[in-house]
Amino acid sequence: MTSRLEPLLNPRSIAMIGASGNPGRIGGMPLELLTRFGFEGGIYPVNPKYQEVFGLRCWPEIEAVPEPVDLAVLAIAAAEVTPMLRRCHAKGIPAAIVYAAGFAEAGDEGARLQAELEAFVAESGMAVAGPNCMGFANLNTQAHTAFASVFKTAPAQDGPGSVSLLTQSGNVCAAVYAIARRVGLPFSHFINTGNEACLDFSQYLEYLAADPQTEIVLGYIEQLRDGGRFVQACRELERRGKLLIALKAGATDKGAQAVQSHTSALAGDRRVYAAAFRQLNVIEATDFAQMAHLASLATLRHRAAGKRVAVLTMSGALGAILADKFIGAGLSLPDLPPDLQEVLRGGIPDYGMVGNPVDVTGNVVNDPAFVRTVLQALGTSDAIDVVVVYAPGYMLDRMADALAEASRQHRRLFVAIDTGQAQSRAALREAEVAVFEDLGLAVAALAPYLLWCEARATRRQADQPVLDTVAMPALPCNEAQARAYVAAFGVPEAAIGVARSADEAVRDARRVGYPVAVKVLSPDIVHKTEAGGVALNLADDEAVRAAWADVTQAAARAQPGARIDGVMVQKMERGVAEIIVGATRDPVFGPVLTVGLGGVLTEIYQDTSHRLLPVDEDIALQMLRELKAFALLDGFRGKPRGDVAAACQRIVAIGNALLAAPAHVSQIEVNPLLIKEAGQGVAVLDALILPATP
Amino acid sequence: MTSRLEPLLNPRSIAMIGASGNPGRIGGMPLELLTRFGFEGGIYPVNPKYQEVFGLRCWPEIEAVPEPVDLAVLAIAAAEVTPMLRRCHAKGIPAAIVYAAGFAEAGDEGARLQAELEAFVAESGMAVAGPNCMGFANLNTQAHTAFASVFKTAPAQDGPGSVSLLTQSGNVCAAVYAIARRVGLPFSHFINTGNEACLDFSQYLEYLAADPQTEIVLGYIEQLRDGGRFVQACRELERRGKLLIALKAGATDKGAQAVQSHTSALAGDRRVYAAAFRQLNVIEATDFAQMAHLASLATLRHRAAGKRVAVLTMSGALGAILADKFIGAGLSLPDLPPDLQEVLRGGIPDYGMVGNPVDVTGNVVNDPAFVRTVLQALGTSDAIDVVVVYAPGYMLDRMADALAEASRQHRRLFVAIDTGQAQSRAALREAEVAVFEDLGLAVAALAPYLLWCEARATRRQADQPVLDTVAMPALPCNEAQARAYVAAFGVPEAAIGVARSADEAVRDARRVGYPVAVKVLSPDIVHKTEAGGVALNLADDEAVRAAWADVTQAAARAQPGARIDGVMVQKMERGVAEIIVGATRDPVFGPVLTVGLGGVLTEIYQDTSHRLLPVDEDIALQMLRELKAFALLDGFRGKPRGDVAAACQRIVAIGNALLAAPAHVSQIEVNPLLIKEAGQGVAVLDALILPATP
Repeated sequence: MTSRLEPLLNPRSIAMIGASGNPGRIGGMPLELLTRFGFEGGIYPVNPKYQEVFGLRCWPEIEAVPEPVDLAVLAIAAAEVTPMLRRCHAKGIPAAIVYAAGFAEAGDEGARLQAELEAFVAESGMAVAGPNCMGFANLNTQAHTAFASVFKTAPAQDGPGSVSLLTQSGNVCAAVYAIARRVGLPFSHFINTGNEACLDFSQYLEYLAADPQTEIVLGYIEQLRDGGRFVQACRELERRGKLLIALKAGATDKGAQAVQSHTSALAGDRRVYAAAFRQLNVIEATDFAQMAHLASLATLRHRAAGKRVAVLTMSGALGAILADKFIGAGLSLPDLPPDLQEVLRGGIPDYGMVGNPVDVTGNVVNDPAFVRTVLQALGTSDAIDVVVVYAPGYMLDRMADALAEASRQHRRLFVAIDTGQAQSRAALREAEVAVFEDLGLAVAALAPYLLWCEARATRRQADQPVLDTVAMPALPCNEAQARAYVAAFGVPEAAIGVARSADEAVRDARRVGYPVAVKVLSPDIVHKTEAGGVALNLADDEAVRAAWADVTQAAARAQPGARIDGVMVQKMERGVAEIIVGATRDPVFGPVLTVGLGGVLTEIYQDTSHRLLPVDEDIALQMLRELKAFALLDGFRGKPRGDVAAACQRIVAIGNALLAAPAHVSQIEVNPLLIKEAGQGVAVLDALILPATP
Repeated sequence: MTSRLEPLLNPRSIAMIGASGNPGRIGGMPLELLTRFGFEGGIYPVNPKYQEVFGLRCWPEIEAVPEPVDLAVLAIAAAEVTPMLRRCHAKGIPAAIVYAAGFAEAGDEGARLQAELEAFVAESGMAVAGPNCMGFANLNTQAHTAFASVFKTAPAQDGPGSVSLLTQSGNVCAAVYAIARRVGLPFSHFINTGNEACLDFSQYLEYLAADPQTEIVLGYIEQLRDGGRFVQACRELERRGKLLIALKAGATDKGAQAVQSHTSALAGDRRVYAAAFRQLNVIEATDFAQMAHLASLATLRHRAAGKRVAVLTMSGALGAILADKFIGAGLSLPDLPPDLQEVLRGGIPDYGMVGNPVDVTGNVVNDPAFVRTVLQALGTSDAIDVVVVYAPGYMLDRMADALAEASRQHRRLFVAIDTGQAQSRAALREAEVAVFEDLGLAVAALAPYLLWCEARATRRQADQPVLDTVAMPALPCNEAQARAYVAAFGVPEAAIGVARSADEAVRDARRVGYPVAVKVLSPDIVHKTEAGGVALNLADDEAVRAAWADVTQAAARAQPGARIDGVMVQKMERGVAEIIVGATRDPVFGPVLTVGLGGVLTEIYQDTSHRLLPVDEDIALQMLRELKAFALLDGFRGKPRGDVAAACQRIVAIGNALLAAPAHVSQIEVNPLLIKEAGQGVAVLDALILPATP
């Protein structure tokens, strides 16, 4: 089935409504580009003021155009847009681009105009881009509808391209295009989405996933209006072996504010976006030049690659600097195995290095046969994934033939970094060697790319679990009710007692075993400790009896009117570490899970891991391993290991508890979850279920 | 007084011993460069094989040269070097450069040759550079002695330069030179130090501090052989308003290994280097292109600058991306004050932004009068330090006149980022606007530069304290002795008891007040808790009596033969947080102080602060504030504030305790130091003094 977006993004004929003969005006520049770059379809300028523009006949009104039109471009004021769209629709034009600003971003009157536009589009089914957008370009057909002078100033592209730009800002679209063309990236689509009144980022992404011209998408995202559709489009890209490289604005409050002010967008939780990107096979970028270099690398993604890098250079110093930068960026430089070191030592003098980085020394650079031996050995070693040659200028030139040959013979990624002016760059690129001219950019692009390659091998999607319906207590609920709900998701809960009198508390304490903790039970008291509602380390009946009185009275004093359901009696337990596990509903991506070290330090060190739900136990383990604090669970400084397997089970259960919960539940949190020594399980020390705030 | 290095770095005449007529050989290339670039001093090739090279008369032996020679360049094999230096010295030549490898970096025979060389230099007083170095260049006199083809391939420099390169690697010297010349940086000296047999990095730095030609030094450091001299040279640079920008290799173990293998250097403690750099006014760089851009910025250091950045752009998206990157790099974008916002709102439409970033919108770019108003307002506002304009290509061109004018009128730093191809770059640079072509590089250079500017205002050097001599106990010593030594440095210690019997322990416990802790006292037991030597929370005489027996017996069992001096009795105290304070001797920089959050998480999160000693209370406060965990002391989540003033006093005292200690003491550590609520002081919970390991 042909996409509704086909006439928009791959039009056979274009009408420019509000045409101008002035290439500096928005109604003129696209016409100039269409004629300059030789668009082969029909071009129909429309403006009663002119007979001819750019050598093209100009029509007085859209109805006068004698041929079928795929795409109408509206270079007219906001108030005139919807009436004109009606006329276009009446003429059978299926798609339109609206340049005009003055819609949702511009106050009440603008919002009214946008509502009118949206209503017409819903009713007519036209594919309408914008408003408040810069227009598009299809570089494979030269269908230019963008008023973007960058097409005149950036190096023109000869031949087809398979990289598409999809941005929520026209300026970003133009800026990335300019930079990427300077590094020679060939483009397919140039798309900026404007206000997304009718078509949003995810719908364009869906089109590009199916588009036979597009292999790689460079995305700029401020806000996703349809997270679910975005997820599906990313999965479709992945299924087809395509790739989205995305820059998300709003990592900081200031950045989020700037975006919000700009398109009324909500920047969303930065960490959830980052987690979603990793799960959805998206490479996250942080600036424009880096995006372009990531795209260049991604064109080589058929080559094997991963985070284990071999560095070959002709100077210990350059090797040291690169090692520092690569390792600092999360890559590794494993020691080369002894047999490989022996091969290298065959020609590298004592003052050179055969470990990793490999310093062949300046002299060896002049021995092409030995350089060939080294590169062949590195090209086939199982100990590494990628070979990076760092040699400035003529030093690289001397090794270039051997490097190109190795790249042709082995399907592994080879990289050259030349901070000089090597003559061999083009020949190396021809042989599919990735060439960088700047050290900082090389690391900035290679690190996320190679980590993506590494993750590609192990990335997995948890199956949607089949979950029984469990009765959700009325919210707000007390801790015992929250525990019981979570416990229903497959993980037995340690014995607790719920007592409505001092006698019952003593009975429960004897049952669970001393020493115990006693906590007030109330759906209304969230901060029990602060309310004096917690007594710890109670050793005997007498202490429990006293605690009953203390915690219920203190809580009633601290929060008069709070419903007191009694107390909870729980065995005091010791463990290796405490973590926090929280499942929440993200406004963009839906149910997400957060795992972090428990306690106040979570917030200070931001040592947390996030995933879209569902997760399974393997993913739960990945999450724990992502925490720096995982060391605490892993036999840190001779301390016992934690029961990681039991923790993973419980993490999955908490996620499932939210997945199975009714829509009015916004958050289920266990904080802390005590992880005991390996083999001894875990213990929920507190649990909470929160309703959505209306 | 003229420096001994003057004939080496600013020679009036040069002899090339081992001269060649082949510009591809090391004995030929410098002669080619000297003649090509018109060195005006004497040039004396020496080689019995030739009559003439590069149009210069070639002398059969150094003794035959008829004129005085400042500098002999030895392009001869390692074994011939010292004999030839003797002949040069006999002829009255004061300085020499030794190219040859095969010295300390190359096994036993090489080490012998280097020892011979060092002995001769010590005896003769010659200034000898290298061995194993690439040679130098003085770009102001065109005195070329380096076999570095980069002088032929990099853009040549017309006119004088004031940036000097000083590196511990010839390859790095050449690589940075190439990159820096491409961004137009004008050089003075090109120095690479080789094996530093006789002259080390710090001695060259000392020369450059005094050199009237040098304003900015770009340094590459693997290992400092004389930390004290480096410190003095940095202070001299600072005194003269000069600046060192340094890249230190060996931030990672692999990087350190690579450096070590390369020149037998010890990379040293990365965090101590970083702390020393900050204290010594050095800007730390992480790659070559960034170094060059830092140097460009540093040429504008007479302009006021700091971390509060105003961003002006014509797109919310570009503003958001820049805000994210700047804030992520440690800078801030303060909200502009209301009166300034009002001025901006006078011309910026509703859909633009007047906070910060300022989005003037694409239309306003075309209104030069208003752009001028905006830039003048930003140029004088007290709310910010620096103005960054981000506008690609022609957008920047349209604002360029107003920007240049503002830069000429106001002594504040103005920056332009142009990811397009603006025509106005040269004119802006002429007006002292810093211009960047790449977003990543702009942030990579601006962030450390502006943080340096910020620190410049508050950087202080603690006065050397006048310290009384305090008797140091014999080492190893027990905890009570360590506490007593530290307490002598001006901070009274809470009452503790030292008991040699159960009765004495009870007496002490009553004196300090229950509840108490009892700890075994032994100079031989470092890990008291693991040895069962600690009992906490003892509530009465009976418990103390039992604890006496428990801890002394457990400790004796855990470490038979350990000397047991009795027990220490200490009041149990509660506080806001625990920190670690350690004073150690760094092999490069001498006494240094470390402050961090106490407990196992210090190691996991590496949340520590370091300073060269001495420190005073203001610096101690800076150290605490550098910790992310400082939030815990600062009223985190409504908890009480910690007694930061008392903590600072104690931090200073611990540093002074090491400064006053005899040389055989390697470390004095208080871990943990309990910080109580504000006004309630601190408590030493454990203390340790360690001797240097032989």
